[in-house]
Amino acid sequence: MKPRIKKISVLGSTGSIGVNTLKIAEQFPDRLKVVGLAAGRNLALLARQAKKFRPARIAVGDPALIPALRSKLKGKRVEILAGMEGLVSLARDPEADEIVLSVSGSIGLRPALAALRAGKQLALANKEALVMGGELLMKASRGLGDSLIPIDSEHSALFQLLEGKKPAEIRRLFLTASGGPFLHRSPRSLSRVTPEEALFHPVWKMGRKVSIDSATLMNKGLEVIEAHYLFRTEPERLKVLIHPQGRVHALLELKDGAVLGHLGIPDMRIPIAYALSYPERLPLRLPALSLPELKGLTFLEAEPRRFPALRLAYSALAAGGTMPAVLSIANENAVEAFLARRILFPRIVELVARVLDARKENPAAGIEAIAAAETWARRETEAIIHRWR
Amino acid sequence: MKPRIKKISVLGSTGSIGVNTLKIAEQFPDRLKVVGLAAGRNLALLARQAKKFRPARIAVGDPALIPALRSKLKGKRVEILAGMEGLVSLARDPEADEIVLSVSGSIGLRPALAALRAGKQLALANKEALVMGGELLMKASRGLGDSLIPIDSEHSALFQLLEGKKPAEIRRLFLTASGGPFLHRSPRSLSRVTPEEALFHPVWKMGRKVSIDSATLMNKGLEVIEAHYLFRTEPERLKVLIHPQGRVHALLELKDGAVLGHLGIPDMRIPIAYALSYPERLPLRLPALSLPELKGLTFLEAEPRRFPALRLAYSALAAGGTMPAVLSIANENAVEAFLARRILFPRIVELVARVLDARKENPAAGIEAIAAAETWARRETEAIIHRWR
Repeated sequence: MKPRIKKISVLGSTGSIGVNTLKIAEQFPDRLKVVGLAAGRNLALLARQAKKFRPARIAVGDPALIPALRSKLKGKRVEILAGMEGLVSLARDPEADEIVLSVSGSIGLRPALAALRAGKQLALANKEALVMGGELLMKASRGLGDSLIPIDSEHSALFQLLEGKKPAEIRRLFLTASGGPFLHRSPRSLSRVTPEEALFHPVWKMGRKVSIDSATLMNKGLEVIEAHYLFRTEPERLKVLIHPQGRVHALLELKDGAVLGHLGIPDMRIPIAYALSYPERLPLRLPALSLPELKGLTFLEAEPRRFPALRLAYSALAAGGTMPAVLSIANENAVEAFLARRILFPRIVELVARVLDARKENPAAGIEAIAAAETWARRETEAIIHRWR
Repeated sequence: MKPRIKKISVLGSTGSIGVNTLKIAEQFPDRLKVVGLAAGRNLALLARQAKKFRPARIAVGDPALIPALRSKLKGKRVEILAGMEGLVSLARDPEADEIVLSVSGSIGLRPALAALRAGKQLALANKEALVMGGELLMKASRGLGDSLIPIDSEHSALFQLLEGKKPAEIRRLFLTASGGPFLHRSPRSLSRVTPEEALFHPVWKMGRKVSIDSATLMNKGLEVIEAHYLFRTEPERLKVLIHPQGRVHALLELKDGAVLGHLGIPDMRIPIAYALSYPERLPLRLPALSLPELKGLTFLEAEPRRFPALRLAYSALAAGGTMPAVLSIANENAVEAFLARRILFPRIVELVARVLDARKENPAAGIEAIAAAETWARRETEAIIHRWR
């Protein structure tokens, strides 16, 4: 039986995940058809992608960019949308079966919700949506696999390992972390770290935000929060292991002591393709994982003393309510401030800690409460940066 | 719902697997009841086990041992059987639901067949049965999981990894091998190896036969043949990786490049318990696997040049018919000869090679052909040893 062609829209098509998604769509034209694309401000690449895949609708980050984009696509039949409205409109586009959401940062929440509420399959690469609105998203979805599939390599790995397992079988879930580029640097020397150094990831080639998050280990903190919502797992059963070689993406410890691991070369096409073809697998033409080529797979405990970002994430998760949203927004702003050379590297996590400390109220995470927490956290982060100057 | 108590018989109860099986039965008396025990010649332990678990029937390796065993069990209500007849009778005992077959060597084939043909669940730890009569056993079984569950740690691992997977998803299966105690010894120095040195396994505490097989790597060769029959997988998709730490038991490479691994502490109670409780898992109280405590997990290609036992196993498998039976019998006799100090360590594999070379005919592996191959291979092995003296 020939499989039906799945129509996909890629929101965040010019970023690392978006580009890899389109590579897969190109490799499997009889399985995948691109009907929508959205990008922020990389008009040149977005226009090239639109010419190649001929989606009916595309969106750009800002309405002011529409004329420039239209002139690049002169003579092409394509509807051009913009801003949050454009993202949300593409997310619920009746033409699309599956939405790949790979935008970076807190702007992911609204299109994620829109896609789920419109009954789409959502392939989710955006971390912040789940961290900020985990309960909302899980409530809007028909469940993992049925309408929500994680793309993040660790969560895709856990999703795959958990398939067919009964909750009673599970003891603990382990997410691995490469430890980032500064794993072996003294904390003291981190003040001198430049954005260029912090953006260099030892294992994965990724976008700017997630690269910095990997350097602070806040990325793994966010992932622990994501895993809590995705897999309905208590924080004390979610563990982090530092694994510098990045070949083991996650581990699942079962009740009898057996541990299942998900391994692979560090290439995002594997989890992306799975989110596009689930429950099948596509025959990707990637180099095979060769364990003998590696010197060895090593693992370290992720001590919260050494990795304060992890400690903050666990405590925001324990507090619940809008605290994970505050953590996510404070972190997002702190990363931007670091990349703009307004604060030093060690200040990123310190800033998040200060903002969390300053938060007095903690309402349940409804959509308005999250929006209010977002506004508050942005202002508070900015205020602290100003005091530091 | 309270699970029904499963009635088990343990054939090979005084060996390493048997003793561990009984530990589990003792830990879960509301799940498992021992109704039969069989051992070779360790009468003292068999009698203690019989007193503790009160099976209705027990068997001993030789009819001549019955009086001594009976006197140890004076006043106890227990039927005592002996020899191959005893094993086969216990294997098809109407009282038993599941047969744990953990006898060592070629005597495993007949009771394995008897258990499957009597409709029992067979938990198979005996390698030789499957190597010699793989086709016969698979034909007699209702399929993996339904009536045949492997206990060998590598095959249990693959069985678990393959659960719920479709054949089209699978690319390759990897069995790991510790490499045995002589992994880093020069081939030349192996002539001086004593049985005591060869019996010392770096990772697993096991019986004598399998310990020697691990030192020659014939154990892994036999396991490749087993995996071929159990998982209906072509030899070229069955790979061996040397992994000295023994924590990764097997790996499953999928079509998209993802690799699933089965890890755990090296404790046979995990695979044994799974074979007893499948498809559930028992909450074993074992130390958790702690990857950070290990210096690193390393892997080496198992080059056939360096490990001739593997090469022999693949070529016997390619030849098919009764050739795997000839390999298994020649190896069994060679190991016995080494343990009796009749031949040197490097001669074990050389002897197997010679016997395989001498084999001219290769009929299909029916039960009579296997028996004839067994007789021929025993005689041929003995003849070569004699010529060497």
